[in-house]
Amino acid sequence: MKELKGACLFGQSGGPTSVINASAAGVFLEALNQKNITRVYGAVHGIRGILHEELIDINQEDPKELEYLKNTPSSALGSVRYKLKDASVDDTDYKRLLEVFKKYDVRYFFYNGGNDSMDTCNKISKYLQQANYECRVIGVPKTIDNDLFGTDHCPGFASAAKYVATSTMEVYLDSHVYDTGLIVVIEVMGRHAGWLTAAASLANLKGCGADLIYLPEVDFDLDKFMADVKAVAAKTNNKAIIVVSEGIHDKDGKFIAEYGKDVAHDSFGHAQLGGVGLFLAGKINAELGVKVRAIELSLLQRCAAHCGSARDIEEAFNAGKMAVKYAISGETDKMVIFERKNQKDYEIEYKLVDLLYAANTEKKVPLEWINKEHNGVNEKFAEYALPLIQGELKFPLEDGLPRFAHLKKVMVQK
Amino acid sequence: MKELKGACLFGQSGGPTSVINASAAGVFLEALNQKNITRVYGAVHGIRGILHEELIDINQEDPKELEYLKNTPSSALGSVRYKLKDASVDDTDYKRLLEVFKKYDVRYFFYNGGNDSMDTCNKISKYLQQANYECRVIGVPKTIDNDLFGTDHCPGFASAAKYVATSTMEVYLDSHVYDTGLIVVIEVMGRHAGWLTAAASLANLKGCGADLIYLPEVDFDLDKFMADVKAVAAKTNNKAIIVVSEGIHDKDGKFIAEYGKDVAHDSFGHAQLGGVGLFLAGKINAELGVKVRAIELSLLQRCAAHCGSARDIEEAFNAGKMAVKYAISGETDKMVIFERKNQKDYEIEYKLVDLLYAANTEKKVPLEWINKEHNGVNEKFAEYALPLIQGELKFPLEDGLPRFAHLKKVMVQK
Repeated sequence: MKELKGACLFGQSGGPTSVINASAAGVFLEALNQKNITRVYGAVHGIRGILHEELIDINQEDPKELEYLKNTPSSALGSVRYKLKDASVDDTDYKRLLEVFKKYDVRYFFYNGGNDSMDTCNKISKYLQQANYECRVIGVPKTIDNDLFGTDHCPGFASAAKYVATSTMEVYLDSHVYDTGLIVVIEVMGRHAGWLTAAASLANLKGCGADLIYLPEVDFDLDKFMADVKAVAAKTNNKAIIVVSEGIHDKDGKFIAEYGKDVAHDSFGHAQLGGVGLFLAGKINAELGVKVRAIELSLLQRCAAHCGSARDIEEAFNAGKMAVKYAISGETDKMVIFERKNQKDYEIEYKLVDLLYAANTEKKVPLEWINKEHNGVNEKFAEYALPLIQGELKFPLEDGLPRFAHLKKVMVQK
Repeated sequence: MKELKGACLFGQSGGPTSVINASAAGVFLEALNQKNITRVYGAVHGIRGILHEELIDINQEDPKELEYLKNTPSSALGSVRYKLKDASVDDTDYKRLLEVFKKYDVRYFFYNGGNDSMDTCNKISKYLQQANYECRVIGVPKTIDNDLFGTDHCPGFASAAKYVATSTMEVYLDSHVYDTGLIVVIEVMGRHAGWLTAAASLANLKGCGADLIYLPEVDFDLDKFMADVKAVAAKTNNKAIIVVSEGIHDKDGKFIAEYGKDVAHDSFGHAQLGGVGLFLAGKINAELGVKVRAIELSLLQRCAAHCGSARDIEEAFNAGKMAVKYAISGETDKMVIFERKNQKDYEIEYKLVDLLYAANTEKKVPLEWINKEHNGVNEKFAEYALPLIQGELKFPLEDGLPRFAHLKKVMVQK
């Protein structure tokens, strides 16, 4: 293995999770310890911070505060949703990136994000190779959606899953308290993959779960849904918990959320969803005449660090750490993945997959884990997901409130 | 003090909190230890369970499971919203209650709830007195609204306050992550009292707080609100956290939630609120053209036992315990209250207030704690509320999920 000396640059991208900063801590604390890494930089707002040359000097941060990053949700450096054009179409951004990389002698580049971010990371990696600029590029996975290809699961998913399952249990107890009926529709994030929505089923293991769960992996039929709800309501004296993914759609691919409103699109061409829970709640109320509540878990589900999975935090930290170790060992153009060694005694290995495969390939809940009625998941899901939410969370408090990291964020002189 | 031997009956009433069952644990575990209490009963769905003679035999419960009640949200026995008519108008229910009390030799009656429940408790107490049936009646306070008269604060409030402040901090980090604007409107429960909404201001102590907070104690003006939002948005590059009480209303008393929809009423004549956050978010989006999210904390805020205040749990437990001790000592026709001994080193005494005063009197946030602009609270609120959310929560988990109490709920033979 050839030694490579130079600076390290880390960026965060895409939607926040509870543990994206745990990966940052892993990258930073490992990089600061590596003799071949001359300087550690953090990009402000991911790729945009590199283009604008807005870099934070991580060497000036207090290592104790970097430890606090493990329990600080969202992206401490700032995130971004910025789609790089293909270099063959327009290489302006790439030229600028290379210029900045050269200026700061960046020889290690780590990018933390989901599908779209791995696409960005892959494009940069390929461009740097083609430009013959030696730089080791490793992607660090992250997404509550759990839909990255090639890895058993993604950092961020388990903490959100624990929050969804815990909240479902708590809402179950709350909503079953009166002798009158109440149907609760809980809306969970996940545009195309239902992993997080399926996590509500973990509450069922404890007898406080969802009666009906709808994932975007299968088509949603409103009439069938109403029949399902009526059947449950008849059996339960109108008390039910229904959990739906924001991304459920009909057989023509139309989002059910669109049934009730117009839909805008973000810069990746994704429909801006939300509101499907409210729409379905209104429908149930109108047809059954019972009291209905829609609860959209919204941002809460992806930033609830106070309910994080200890195992998720540890793995997210290690993903960042291993990215640096692999890069130092000579690897590049890859993304860190988790490989589950065996099902019984949960254990994972940190391995690598080509960035090309990680980018833009979505991993969905296997259809054979979804029940025949398409309104729930079977025991396979719990076998998969339950090990991920284990461990005893040590969540630092100060005055009874979360103690989040305080970074100095000293900007590097341009 | 005259000794009184007989059974004890406990009921839960009104909206759930995270710690209402902690008070149940306090009542049950203390009552089971008292030699003058011959039997301990729990009423299913509060007053309705007494009328229907649906009683649970608490003596058959495992004391270890009763301990788990401390961390089990909602009302384990079932709750109720049932308004007793004045006995002078219709004494049917009262006669039936007396019949059941006599049949089971109930000499100790404890009722756990908020304003409306204390009204019920007071009416029962007065009727039993007038009927010359010897029974010691003690109310146990409970409400996330924190609006009960005569007590420094109410069990349930602090846990919900901790959840609101914690969630505000987390949502702050999540929503400030991009370099594009996002305004978040968080809707908090509280029809007439803004205590819980004001709890969002605790997040401000940590630099991750709300820019604007609106309480129902003062009139809300939509034009002034929009001017406030615009002023903040101009300073913050369109990033803002706005926290509103569900109960904000205009100078004519009309709920802002009603601006967007028709309003139903519950059996106490309260308007069924919800949706004010969504309404205001739509308004902001339409006028400012920025991305806006409405997050309704909904049931989550009152059942999030996983984020409970350790001090709140302890006090709720003690409130139940002290209710039994006071009754045994001869007290009746009272509600347990908390008296704060001093501000610096937080300490409370468990005292009593006449049920008559506790019933139907609402305690609101003092106007001098609200800022001049009517869009925030001053340091007085934090001085009051911060001590209430302290302590290290020991939240029992099993398989990474909450370990709630499993009661046998053996029904008493009619």
